[in-house]
Amino acid sequence: MKKYSFGSDNHSGVHPLIIKAIEKVNNGYCFGYGEDEYTENVLRKIEALLGGNCKALFVLNGTGANVVSLASFLHPFSSILAPEYAHILQDECGAVERFTSCRITPLPSEQGRVTPQEVKKHLEFGDQHKVQPAILSISEPTEFETLYTPAQIKALADLMHRNGGYLHIDGSRISNAVAALGKSLKEIVADSGADVLSLGGTKNGLLIGEIVVVFNLKKNKAIAENLVYIRKQATQLYSKNRFIAAQFEAYFKDNLYIKMAGAANRMAKYFEAQLKTMLATLSKGGANTKVKAKAEKIAFTQKVETNAVYLSLASLSDAQIKKLQDKYIFYVWNKETKEVRLMCSYNTTKEAVDSFVSDLKELLQK
Amino acid sequence: MKKYSFGSDNHSGVHPLIIKAIEKVNNGYCFGYGEDEYTENVLRKIEALLGGNCKALFVLNGTGANVVSLASFLHPFSSILAPEYAHILQDECGAVERFTSCRITPLPSEQGRVTPQEVKKHLEFGDQHKVQPAILSISEPTEFETLYTPAQIKALADLMHRNGGYLHIDGSRISNAVAALGKSLKEIVADSGADVLSLGGTKNGLLIGEIVVVFNLKKNKAIAENLVYIRKQATQLYSKNRFIAAQFEAYFKDNLYIKMAGAANRMAKYFEAQLKTMLATLSKGGANTKVKAKAEKIAFTQKVETNAVYLSLASLSDAQIKKLQDKYIFYVWNKETKEVRLMCSYNTTKEAVDSFVSDLKELLQK
Amino acid sequence: MKKYSFGSDNHSGVHPLIIKAIEKVNNGYCFGYGEDEYTENVLRKIEALLGGNCKALFVLNGTGANVVSLASFLHPFSSILAPEYAHILQDECGAVERFTSCRITPLPSEQGRVTPQEVKKHLEFGDQHKVQPAILSISEPTEFETLYTPAQIKALADLMHRNGGYLHIDGSRISNAVAALGKSLKEIVADSGADVLSLGGTKNGLLIGEIVVVFNLKKNKAIAENLVYIRKQATQLYSKNRFIAAQFEAYFKDNLYIKMAGAANRMAKYFEAQLKTMLATLSKGGANTKVKAKAEKIAFTQKVETNAVYLSLASLSDAQIKKLQDKYIFYVWNKETKEVRLMCSYNTTKEAVDSFVSDLKELLQK
Amino acid sequence: MKKYSFGSDNHSGVHPLIIKAIEKVNNGYCFGYGEDEYTENVLRKIEALLGGNCKALFVLNGTGANVVSLASFLHPFSSILAPEYAHILQDECGAVERFTSCRITPLPSEQGRVTPQEVKKHLEFGDQHKVQPAILSISEPTEFETLYTPAQIKALADLMHRNGGYLHIDGSRISNAVAALGKSLKEIVADSGADVLSLGGTKNGLLIGEIVVVFNLKKNKAIAENLVYIRKQATQLYSKNRFIAAQFEAYFKDNLYIKMAGAANRMAKYFEAQLKTMLATLSKGGANTKVKAKAEKIAFTQKVETNAVYLSLASLSDAQIKKLQDKYIFYVWNKETKEVRLMCSYNTTKEAVDSFVSDLKELLQK
Repeated sequence: MKKYSFGSDNHSGVHPLIIKAIEKVNNGYCFGYGEDEYTENVLRKIEALLGGNCKALFVLNGTGANVVSLASFLHPFSSILAPEYAHILQDECGAVERFTSCRITPLPSEQGRVTPQEVKKHLEFGDQHKVQPAILSISEPTEFETLYTPAQIKALADLMHRNGGYLHIDGSRISNAVAALGKSLKEIVADSGADVLSLGGTKNGLLIGEIVVVFNLKKNKAIAENLVYIRKQATQLYSKNRFIAAQFEAYFKDNLYIKMAGAANRMAKYFEAQLKTMLATLSKGGANTKVKAKAEKIAFTQKVETNAVYLSLASLSDAQIKKLQDKYIFYVWNKETKEVRLMCSYNTTKEAVDSFVSDLKELLQK
Repeated sequence: MKKYSFGSDNHSGVHPLIIKAIEKVNNGYCFGYGEDEYTENVLRKIEALLGGNCKALFVLNGTGANVVSLASFLHPFSSILAPEYAHILQDECGAVERFTSCRITPLPSEQGRVTPQEVKKHLEFGDQHKVQPAILSISEPTEFETLYTPAQIKALADLMHRNGGYLHIDGSRISNAVAALGKSLKEIVADSGADVLSLGGTKNGLLIGEIVVVFNLKKNKAIAENLVYIRKQATQLYSKNRFIAAQFEAYFKDNLYIKMAGAANRMAKYFEAQLKTMLATLSKGGANTKVKAKAEKIAFTQKVETNAVYLSLASLSDAQIKKLQDKYIFYVWNKETKEVRLMCSYNTTKEAVDSFVSDLKELLQK
Repeated sequence: MKKYSFGSDNHSGVHPLIIKAIEKVNNGYCFGYGEDEYTENVLRKIEALLGGNCKALFVLNGTGANVVSLASFLHPFSSILAPEYAHILQDECGAVERFTSCRITPLPSEQGRVTPQEVKKHLEFGDQHKVQPAILSISEPTEFETLYTPAQIKALADLMHRNGGYLHIDGSRISNAVAALGKSLKEIVADSGADVLSLGGTKNGLLIGEIVVVFNLKKNKAIAENLVYIRKQATQLYSKNRFIAAQFEAYFKDNLYIKMAGAANRMAKYFEAQLKTMLATLSKGGANTKVKAKAEKIAFTQKVETNAVYLSLASLSDAQIKKLQDKYIFYVWNKETKEVRLMCSYNTTKEAVDSFVSDLKELLQK
Repeated sequence: MKKYSFGSDNHSGVHPLIIKAIEKVNNGYCFGYGEDEYTENVLRKIEALLGGNCKALFVLNGTGANVVSLASFLHPFSSILAPEYAHILQDECGAVERFTSCRITPLPSEQGRVTPQEVKKHLEFGDQHKVQPAILSISEPTEFETLYTPAQIKALADLMHRNGGYLHIDGSRISNAVAALGKSLKEIVADSGADVLSLGGTKNGLLIGEIVVVFNLKKNKAIAENLVYIRKQATQLYSKNRFIAAQFEAYFKDNLYIKMAGAANRMAKYFEAQLKTMLATLSKGGANTKVKAKAEKIAFTQKVETNAVYLSLASLSDAQIKKLQDKYIFYVWNKETKEVRLMCSYNTTKEAVDSFVSDLKELLQK
């Protein structure tokens, strides 16, 4: 174990209240595979939180959630539209294609977001030689931890619906969006017209567990009924479901999920502020010209909207970046521009941030 | 939660030492997706336990373990041979077929076991109109909790190898085989020539976690190297692998896995013995003729070799069986013959068994 | 080229009227991929012949027709029910599974036919661990060239419909059924309630071409609309469709298809009669005892209902059968019982049959 | 049937020598599914033509050829690299993805061609979260009927081989490349190091038929041996193979294939020349200013290297283009720029070209 990581929010461990919740249900015997009353009850409560008119079920991980979510809405000749940097395109080793045989068409994006204008260009139907677009998959927050507003989501959902299609939200970090937007899950997802949500937990303090939610049951009833078979085929059915149910019960209780995500978001803002202050100091009048030049080459490459800071470390050598990585786990996002991602989690500390900023300062001064 | 279950060993919760192991690694930060040193170390120790010359990696559940294990050895035109009652055929909703597109050819079986004679009949190659048999999948213990001897496994492995094929062992309850046979994992699996093992944990006291192990790396090197991609595509890659590693470290420490499985096995033997004693009492000379007749219709339908008792409750009415099920979870395996499965887990108590036997006695006396 | 073949009706060449039809449309230019008016017109006429209320489209071969037909009615978690000897199970190298990822569940059969009783046993729904039966696939005539009556087909269709399922008919030799039953395609297929038909041509005198027909458009409208994409994905879309259209136009004109199939059927009946007469002669009173014994061991193993004779050549040595095969192509269907299939096509001659019977007689007399 | 088409070379019918070849083998009986001696012999001759050291087999159509070719070289976690306008991406309705579950990664291209520089960017291996590039698929000629030189193909093959990968050539119009480059099939394909070729026939005067060829049998032996199963699963096995064999025998005899392709190529050059002359006339000094402006807006958008002319009809109204299309079938390739494709086939006439040029001239003069 390392002392620091800004590599990913899943580098953190499990929140103590979540461990406690697991222990609390660790007694007696119950039906497996989610067929126990307790699991059913927790799911009903989650559906209520999401506005009712939806069907939720537990799955194991984020890739699994996306596979089950998307597969439910596809014919084998369908295509999925997604921004070019989508997790399903970049980081899931083709799991969606392997399971569904459907193509994912990459769309140009801006800070991780697609626009209705771009999506519209791909909505052509009826040519027997072409895959038929069926669902748009967006991430909220995006893979650059930026945000769509609920209105932007609604515009995309409406566009898809007008064309007989659907909207999927990869919400592996949806709690961070809830915390940042100050809107409820219901407002962001259900009210925006999304058809299906991958609702993440593991990246925000859970041991393991995600939820697939199909909305708008009037339209999507048959799809919702098929979810259990698709989950099983996707190897996402957990025999001891009560232990996921317990985690999510604790997660939603007293808004623990928002508290954890909010802490991560605030720490990213703090990180940004400390970096800016440090860089400003180095660039100030009277500073060493060389150091000043170096500081001015450090650029914020994405807007800090949730729990990550994207920074171009253009003035550091590769060796210097490597040295930083030895102490603090983090990833280089773009080798050419030396853009790095610094991600905060529910238990990232100010001390960790301060330490990083101070070490970076030192390197810039060399 | 219920007080009693003989429904499945996964109706039980998690062993306290396993919970403790999870808590122990719940600190600090580390790389995700099994790329941390700790997880690597635990895996190397497990490989050593299995005789070395193998590659192990963690997955999430039993269906996932089977999908990853089998997919690694298949061309899309391959077929899998398996006994007709195999879990992959009966209880995984076609997950293997969905992921691999390969057919599973059901073979006649006896108490869950297939014989080389039966397998041989299906080993025909070279006809372009036919799927080509590539791997035999057996379960140890079988789906009726009976056992192959290591010699029987070796005979099947040898047969497959002579025909350019492979042997897979679905070992979701392999610890029960270890405890019952008094042989090590290495002796049962590696020394028998198996090519790949689904090594279960969840059914024997873990919170979550299974292992896929590919053996004989000289022959199966390329296959072993591809495992990580197949695991990811099969949605079986867990971001916080250290929490599975910790469970398995505790599982193998001081033979906890054998102790748990042994307890389950012994309880099944106890169950069988108590049932026999009770039935003998009812059948004894001087007994009520009607009750005697009823008792004599209760038959043990499979040999008790590990942790389950199979019983035909032919003299009970459906309503009576239903009544028993309300108090004790268990499954009717065969509706026509009223064969039921009574499964014991690591924490099944004598009190539970005694209570069931006593209630059954009462029903037979009515 | 060989002089004789009883191996398969696809060992024959193309009927001269079919060649003529191809040449007739070999002029000028037209849209490809079935998007030309001529192809459209021929299809509309075929749909009318089949009773209207259906959607037909051309494909290339029998396996392709089955793949497109079945895929159109399946979810990936569906299963297909089919008699154990079904062509899709025995002779298509898993093409259906490769394309659909669905399991084909083999059902016990009698002379190639399944019964509603047998099918009913597999119609269980709602268990998340089990594939969900969606369609029954039967062949008319069966793989043993025996027949279902229209009433038997209707009973199977009704059973499937009552359970939310569908009926597929693999009609690669459906013309032989039409000729044998003296009923129209509409009566056998559409009026029996079949949902989808693979309508064969290549085995009955065409150069190349089959048709997929989806019936009952009220219920199956969405499915019919998706056919073109499924056909393309299944690599069954032919760029020069007019050349298949022309063949089928000629095929259905003046009942050429029934004439050809009828000729094949009659020749099989003639074959059976000649064999019986020959065998009776050898068994007659006063005959050589050894020869008589040999003749009496030759048994007809399936009823001759369309264009094939199944015979057990139990009294011939393997070498003798091989010798016969050198002169007349035919297949051994069952090595243990020495059951062979003798198949007639539209252009099988009496001379060929007589020659075979005479050669067999000679072998029996040795 | 229409009098003119520049829509596609598959809008043409069948060359008379091909029809004659079909008729010639239409007698007697032979084994089906390519297992007859005649088919075998023709294949051996084709392999010799391609330089030996290769394995050829017949398939039915171009999409089928690509599916079989590519599937043979892929693991399910592999990716295919292809230029963004590749036929497998644009015009096969996802058939390759449906059959293989693999992703096709679109690469930027120039006049349909990719460069080693661009390919190199995508050759990253070893990250468990990413699909693994396995094969590069290029078309010769490209989808814009432009050409790679053999040296350019070799550079791409070498690059892939150095990285453990393969090169596929979609040669649905490879005969046009042979005719244009004045090099043999062996020189263009085998000597360039390609691993697998889709060798087209249908677009160049055949009734139906394509060939899949796997090269470099020393390296690709196991792959070549699996081809027959993959062909069958892909529904590309034709029961009456002799009728494809006969077509290809005639196709390669006396270089008929080069003669036909050469005729098509020459006609495209003629088309280009006539258009240029006509446009020059309209632009000449003293011409009507408005007409001159219109003529100057007509641009050749791709180099004419084989059998197609790409033209931007920017100065025509949509209605005018539609009117032209009513008389001459052709496709608008790019709606925004009004780029159209005018394709010539083996039997395109000067009269047709002259007629089009004259009609276009008239429209420009309006």
